[in-house]
Amino acid sequence: MSGIISLLTDFGLADNFVGAMKGVILKVNPRARIIDICHNIQPQSIIEAAFLLKGSFKFFPKRTVHLVVVDPGVGSGRRKILVKTKNYYFIAPDNGVLALALKEEPPLKIIELANDKYFLKPVSDTFQARDIFAPVAAYVSKGEDIYKFGRQIKAIKASELPKVKAKNNELAGEIIYIDRFGNLVSNIDKETLRNFIKNKKFKISIKDKTIDGLSRSYAEGLKNKPLALIGSFNSLEIALNCGSARDYLRAGKGTKIKIKVKRF
Amino acid sequence: MSGIISLLTDFGLADNFVGAMKGVILKVNPRARIIDICHNIQPQSIIEAAFLLKGSFKFFPKRTVHLVVVDPGVGSGRRKILVKTKNYYFIAPDNGVLALALKEEPPLKIIELANDKYFLKPVSDTFQARDIFAPVAAYVSKGEDIYKFGRQIKAIKASELPKVKAKNNELAGEIIYIDRFGNLVSNIDKETLRNFIKNKKFKISIKDKTIDGLSRSYAEGLKNKPLALIGSFNSLEIALNCGSARDYLRAGKGTKIKIKVKRF
Amino acid sequence: MSGIISLLTDFGLADNFVGAMKGVILKVNPRARIIDICHNIQPQSIIEAAFLLKGSFKFFPKRTVHLVVVDPGVGSGRRKILVKTKNYYFIAPDNGVLALALKEEPPLKIIELANDKYFLKPVSDTFQARDIFAPVAAYVSKGEDIYKFGRQIKAIKASELPKVKAKNNELAGEIIYIDRFGNLVSNIDKETLRNFIKNKKFKISIKDKTIDGLSRSYAEGLKNKPLALIGSFNSLEIALNCGSARDYLRAGKGTKIKIKVKRF
Repeated sequence: MSGIISLLTDFGLADNFVGAMKGVILKVNPRARIIDICHNIQPQSIIEAAFLLKGSFKFFPKRTVHLVVVDPGVGSGRRKILVKTKNYYFIAPDNGVLALALKEEPPLKIIELANDKYFLKPVSDTFQARDIFAPVAAYVSKGEDIYKFGRQIKAIKASELPKVKAKNNELAGEIIYIDRFGNLVSNIDKETLRNFIKNKKFKISIKDKTIDGLSRSYAEGLKNKPLALIGSFNSLEIALNCGSARDYLRAGKGTKIKIKVKRF
Repeated sequence: MSGIISLLTDFGLADNFVGAMKGVILKVNPRARIIDICHNIQPQSIIEAAFLLKGSFKFFPKRTVHLVVVDPGVGSGRRKILVKTKNYYFIAPDNGVLALALKEEPPLKIIELANDKYFLKPVSDTFQARDIFAPVAAYVSKGEDIYKFGRQIKAIKASELPKVKAKNNELAGEIIYIDRFGNLVSNIDKETLRNFIKNKKFKISIKDKTIDGLSRSYAEGLKNKPLALIGSFNSLEIALNCGSARDYLRAGKGTKIKIKVKRF
Repeated sequence: MSGIISLLTDFGLADNFVGAMKGVILKVNPRARIIDICHNIQPQSIIEAAFLLKGSFKFFPKRTVHLVVVDPGVGSGRRKILVKTKNYYFIAPDNGVLALALKEEPPLKIIELANDKYFLKPVSDTFQARDIFAPVAAYVSKGEDIYKFGRQIKAIKASELPKVKAKNNELAGEIIYIDRFGNLVSNIDKETLRNFIKNKKFKISIKDKTIDGLSRSYAEGLKNKPLALIGSFNSLEIALNCGSARDYLRAGKGTKIKIKVKRF
């Protein structure tokens, strides 16, 4: 085992929630290495966490345990799952938060967490990240046999990004994520874009602006002129060199973006 | 020694204060494992730090060194202390910040930090977390004899949460903490509530709303209908399923909350 | 090697950028110890990062690898450098972000990062912190020979804080940094101040307020009366005891501050 546990939650950093989880992990596995992916997921936004997980999990060493807790159903009947893939372990509530990552790295085994021998007692109904997920992640990181945590199940809940629509010579997507710099990340991934434009010239429309083709880097952009590029999420991204495309375009999640192949 | 040091401060994450402390710790003990409990305590709020420490310290492995720095008196005459309890070490300015935790885990020894052999020189009058507390915590985490840091003292400064008042069939408390999700945490802890209601039915009043008894989990709540439960701080908490009770009720720290046993 | 890598970036904590970098580091060096100095540098503010690095790097153990990424020129032609000094390694884009630290700790060797054997492939044009800087830092932390990363170069880009001006009996500086507590940090460092006032009495003017000489600690200040002291950045700082000097004085970066030696 690598002993590495990554954390991705909507707990924020204003409270002691993440700290308590880490204490619990170290109680079980004092050698665990805990790495924060992000704790500032918008409260209860399963799809945002799913998107950031998809963009992060592969950068970690093999056998990393990815613990993802965005859990609006905490304490209700939703299942809690442990997924083994070729390279990683994933632990999360079964609410779709793993779905985008597992499309890229298919599950080999899915276990429903049920054996309370591995839980912190008493298990609260409001903070199972601390009482269930954290200790289980720690035991997994120590190499505990995954069949001990519960019975194997077949399928997990899905979640999906908004679909890109192709029609005639137009590809219609939308902004699905906005980063700290105000870069607007769309649901049009690199492959979808490449397959659609097939080396032809194209233009991108967002709000009342039109952008000609792709730049390679943020630094290529001119002042007050938005540019488009394939960003680190491997998706079409609208940015403003040394500025915020979000503020400049007054765009947000859901803002439409269109790709048109040029006719001449 | 576990070599684990937890940090709880009001230094925030916008500056380099926490990073500098961690550097100093690793200079003294390169094997120390440093875990952040929280750095976003409201500036100078001793009681908030005391409350989060009380809700966190037990989740850490035995022999963890809990370093707590909310220190409006830095550089003045306030004492700096090291407390050994059955399971942990605590290091802090002597201003009440440890008091709530030590009510649950009584001090066995209290040492006033005085031996400047263990301090970073020169000691500044504005950042003793870096120059005094961090290196001392690192030496303690390495197993240094605690009597070497200074002389033993008898008592430390107290701090207290607002008191809950019981009168006739009413229990009167208040909101003392609000978490990232807008959940309103009161000073009425589980035991006080249980002792008061003794299995009878009861209702909870906050602002102009009345809530019937307790829910078990956030997910039980209906849209736009606040619920009450015993949360992860082991206290009565008012919440809104997938929403913010703070925003919905326009409540804040100090908002009154009342429990009334039902008469029929 | 110490195996310690410090991180200082403008990536914030709202996205997965820092987490992805850490994953990459651990893939290369599973034993690396990663310490965050700060990730909340104002986007693209090279000088702010340079200032915080200068105030932090010395507090880390010898042989720490300081990785600093504020990189508005990412993907453009700017160089990427590795600097070895007597006590540390520094890795950054060559845009001035290391300049203030290296004034205190002069470079012994400067290497331009060019050997893509050490890069994550494919190298993106938008996130070279993850694809170039993080893996290189990890290899350096493992003890890789620094000449393997590229050819040696002579000089790096400069950056400078605003200059302090001395004229007759007046020293004129400005606020260059404001911390979480609203303390106003000026560009007048301790030595400059001492050399100028030479044990004479002096007063400090900022906005419409006058402050008499230095206090030693924040706690010496009276309510609603700003004080001046030499803070943890080793510079003249204006503060308000248990309050925010920024809010009280409505000051900001660039606010002028003057020192006058008293005539009688």
